[in-house]
Amino acid sequence: MNPGFDAMWADLEPVGRDPRGGYRRFAWTDTDAELRAWFDAEAARRGLDTTVDRAGNQWAWWGSPGPDAKGVVAGSHLDSVPHGGAFDGPLGVVSAFAAVDELRARNHTPSRPIGVVNFGDEEGARFGIACAGSRLLTGALPVDRALALTDADGVSLGAALAHQGRSAPAPDPEALERVGTFVELHVEQGRWLVDQGAAIGVATEIWPHGRWRVTLAGEANHAGTTPLADRRDPMLELAALVTEARAAAARHDVLATVGKVEVEPNGVNAIPSEVRAWLDCRGADPDAVAAVLADLDARFAPANESWTDATVFDPALAARLSTVLMNAPLLPTGAGHDAGILSAAGIPTAMLFVRNPTGVSHSPAEHAEPADCHAGVVALADVLAELTR
Amino acid sequence: MNPGFDAMWADLEPVGRDPRGGYRRFAWTDTDAELRAWFDAEAARRGLDTTVDRAGNQWAWWGSPGPDAKGVVAGSHLDSVPHGGAFDGPLGVVSAFAAVDELRARNHTPSRPIGVVNFGDEEGARFGIACAGSRLLTGALPVDRALALTDADGVSLGAALAHQGRSAPAPDPEALERVGTFVELHVEQGRWLVDQGAAIGVATEIWPHGRWRVTLAGEANHAGTTPLADRRDPMLELAALVTEARAAAARHDVLATVGKVEVEPNGVNAIPSEVRAWLDCRGADPDAVAAVLADLDARFAPANESWTDATVFDPALAARLSTVLMNAPLLPTGAGHDAGILSAAGIPTAMLFVRNPTGVSHSPAEHAEPADCHAGVVALADVLAELTR
Repeated sequence: MNPGFDAMWADLEPVGRDPRGGYRRFAWTDTDAELRAWFDAEAARRGLDTTVDRAGNQWAWWGSPGPDAKGVVAGSHLDSVPHGGAFDGPLGVVSAFAAVDELRARNHTPSRPIGVVNFGDEEGARFGIACAGSRLLTGALPVDRALALTDADGVSLGAALAHQGRSAPAPDPEALERVGTFVELHVEQGRWLVDQGAAIGVATEIWPHGRWRVTLAGEANHAGTTPLADRRDPMLELAALVTEARAAAARHDVLATVGKVEVEPNGVNAIPSEVRAWLDCRGADPDAVAAVLADLDARFAPANESWTDATVFDPALAARLSTVLMNAPLLPTGAGHDAGILSAAGIPTAMLFVRNPTGVSHSPAEHAEPADCHAGVVALADVLAELTR
Repeated sequence: MNPGFDAMWADLEPVGRDPRGGYRRFAWTDTDAELRAWFDAEAARRGLDTTVDRAGNQWAWWGSPGPDAKGVVAGSHLDSVPHGGAFDGPLGVVSAFAAVDELRARNHTPSRPIGVVNFGDEEGARFGIACAGSRLLTGALPVDRALALTDADGVSLGAALAHQGRSAPAPDPEALERVGTFVELHVEQGRWLVDQGAAIGVATEIWPHGRWRVTLAGEANHAGTTPLADRRDPMLELAALVTEARAAAARHDVLATVGKVEVEPNGVNAIPSEVRAWLDCRGADPDAVAAVLADLDARFAPANESWTDATVFDPALAARLSTVLMNAPLLPTGAGHDAGILSAAGIPTAMLFVRNPTGVSHSPAEHAEPADCHAGVVALADVLAELTR
């Protein structure tokens, strides 16, 4: 039982429901503002000092961090993908507030400040760049590039911020300087912990991952009058790309996905003039990922849009947390997180994963049992206690 | 040389250019209003009486049609598909006006009225129903269903009509009653006339054609964390559908096209929850079309959205026109036309095709040589003279 956790979870439950299923909690929308108000209210309820950094991320502090007293921060994000689940992101923020409650119930006196963070725009669902809040914070995402991003309706990030009464974002080295250690608790996006029979795990690394764009050129023509032999139909090329990429991924033991496709002109009676497809590929071994790309037929000419090397979390910190958590298992993940961005910026960083019985993520089927969520709060409190002894 | 034709063609050339290529002349837009004003001006220039029927189609009359003097009508449409070509539609309307000029230059006195028509919304590019103007006219498209159609921005057909100062459409049997014979001249949407070495051909029939929707269900999941073996990825099913449909079409000597695809949620790092694909299939033999559908794996469960039986144009009329045109070759077509709708409504109907050197249609590459266009005007004038002797 954890009434504090359960009450916060119930408060968030109705916010940003998508009538077509799951949640739609996009950055810098009115729903996002509602989530941010919830964060402020929970901080206020606990007497925590709140700040918003120049990149738009929310912080709540128990104690006053400074150059000589860097904080230990827990948290995650509150935004979602379209039709997203309830756990990816919010579980980490809610658990961080609940862990503060747990530490206070234990009469723990932290040796250094403890913070709770809500990173903005982690999913990149609206403007296309994942971890935009943490990347802006650390400077990994240049402000000019961020301001030029537009959503599906053509609204720029700058305009969306202005609409919410926010000024243009900026890197915030002072805010980053307050973070001595960052711990992100997250629902597992797979069934590895289920197979291990463990409720909680500790992350070792984020796999290297990349995305590529494939532009398949065709010749626009009438579907009712063009003989098959005269066609240059890029939909057939898409079929070949999808099939080849999947086979190559299986061969090299990595993941490859074509999740996004755009068709021009996308008419029932029109042979497409062009099909654009995006290939996401990742795995433990960057050479294996490269091998998948190399195996694709040369005519696909995939254009790299992004590549992120493996993020190896601080091994000593991961080992220490695993020990504190009674030898919680260590596991890698294929998903990017704000923890990866902070780790890349040189901050000692760790992640805890909470078991997900469906293994499903980015979907309404994403789940964690209440008992596992409560165990996650205890684990996070144990970790914060260890790091602020 | 045909200065009248060339001047009209030059006037239309800049109207509705799409900055991304070709034309975007969608029904009931300001561009459409500009095209309709051009029609009125050309009619006025020739002293023709103009009317707009209750379905929104434009008519220009040389003479006064009535129950005892049904007219011979030539024409086509002025709207386009997205990124469409200049010829599909406008060639028939411009040629009809030019044929009137040609008949007058020959001092021809028609035995019955001659009309020029511009059918509205033939391509269905905006509201999804092809030949909407002629279908509304004949009653083949119920008004309730038409008014419920919406465009990509959610604007209903009713609202679009109101925005252009038009009232709701209705069938117009009186307008239809004035049409004794309809002749639609159209650019060929294939290379059959090129292969025959003929500038002009006469249509025998429109192939039977249908469209089917295939809903491919998957399980939304994270592309970075879900093992290949645990996936239900509908993009792989799309690849199989596209490949199977093409192979079956080749086997049964018909056309099959997957030209439109919708992916949910269409995110780079998301295994799709659903992919919807539309299959267009047509050919001379309806049993062969049915065989393609039957050959698809049962799991695709294609849902029929529309089916149109073969439209066989009046064989005696086609033979007569071929004779008038010095044994112009007879050919079938796979594309739907307003001529097919009028023929199905019981009006003696014929089509003339003008050679298209690229064979391409519904694309900026669609083309007809000026000499062939001018030959089309002469042919249409010959046909109208024959039918109004």
